Amino acid sequence: MSYAPDMATRADGGRQRGGRRPGDSGTREAILTAARAAFAEHGYDRATIRGIAAEAGVDAALVHHFHGTKQQLFARAMQLPLDPDAVITELTAGGPDGIGERIARFFVGLLSDPELAGPIIAMIRSAVGNPDAARMLREFYTAVVIRGIAVRLGLPDGELRASLCGSQIIGLAVARHVLELPALVAAGDEALIAAYGDALQRYLTGPLP
Amino acid sequence: MSYAPDMATRADGGRQRGGRRPGDSGTREAILTAARAAFAEHGYDRATIRGIAAEAGVDAALVHHFHGTKQQLFARAMQLPLDPDAVITELTAGGPDGIGERIARFFVGLLSDPELAGPIIAMIRSAVGNPDAARMLREFYTAVVIRGIAVRLGLPDGELRASLCGSQIIGLAVARHVLELPALVAAGDEALIAAYGDALQRYLTGPLP
Repeated sequence: MSYAPDMATRADGGRQRGGRRPGDSGTREAILTAARAAFAEHGYDRATIRGIAAEAGVDAALVHHFHGTKQQLFARAMQLPLDPDAVITELTAGGPDGIGERIARFFVGLLSDPELAGPIIAMIRSAVGNPDAARMLREFYTAVVIRGIAVRLGLPDGELRASLCGSQIIGLAVARHVLELPALVAAGDEALIAAYGDALQRYLTGPLP
Repeated sequence: MSYAPDMATRADGGRQRGGRRPGDSGTREAILTAARAAFAEHGYDRATIRGIAAEAGVDAALVHHFHGTKQQLFARAMQLPLDPDAVITELTAGGPDGIGERIARFFVGLLSDPELAGPIIAMIRSAVGNPDAARMLREFYTAVVIRGIAVRLGLPDGELRASLCGSQIIGLAVARHVLELPALVAAGDEALIAAYGDALQRYLTGPLP
């Protein structure tokens, strides 16, 4: 299965909207530039498609036409190698059974591929170094990833449970791929998937005090 | 119990060694400055007490007299609010039973105290932003914390097990105290200690593939 954004070709539709030609790749880029600035300045929650469209000199419908939903626009603007909503839908489709291993397998694999991991590590680096970037990542991660998992699984205390998972996934990214702790670098992916999968499963479906 | 470095008063012994007066706080500071530079340039493993002493213009015995072991010198140079070896000795003293909760309780509490957490968060920030700082933290964390826990507990695969714990502790620090994920900020310390304690216990003593 592929988690790559599936809208890559939608921008070639060629319909005429707003003040510029939709086929103009400069317009698509202008929207992404405006989106990056808006997310950085206002955070994920308060940035609006309308505001981003105005900044790029197009109408909001063209932003959706080129870049999909707000979370898809964010993923593109940050050059994330995936469509977060599609990933979460796929990972949670099987319900709570085995969800820990599926999430662990996805992230261990994703982070082990330098090309895919690069933009994610870059976003964590920015967030750790800069409060505006931290707010942006916090709001995106909470609104899209954590609440997405919590709502789709329908578990009580779902946001806390998904946040516990989130903290372990961030810790995996930093410890294995930034600090490069030797035992984690040397460990096989399957060993890590088993260990982290068990922990994530318990965070999501085990007892909470 | 207190994890503060217990050598704070040792520097007042007033014995005459090397080329400078031991009571000279300028000498103590010069050693710490030389230590910070050496750890940053050479990493934790390859920095030597002898080299640090030479850089500070004193003999190695005076470095030990003022600042204890290499790991204690590192903790002081980085302004860590604890003596890592003393902490690990205390946490592992009760053996494997309940070790997960003891480690979780220690780190959740430490990180919740802004004054104590500040230098630790600062070290993580530096490491995420800078490869030399990453190497320094990796080597210190591996040599002192991870191997310290692994050796004292005497568990098979101890370094991998302690590194899995390390990744969750780093993830807790980043997710709750840097990104400030709302559900983790809102959660009570006891709830987090229970959830993380269970995961850390399984990383240390549960089955590994």
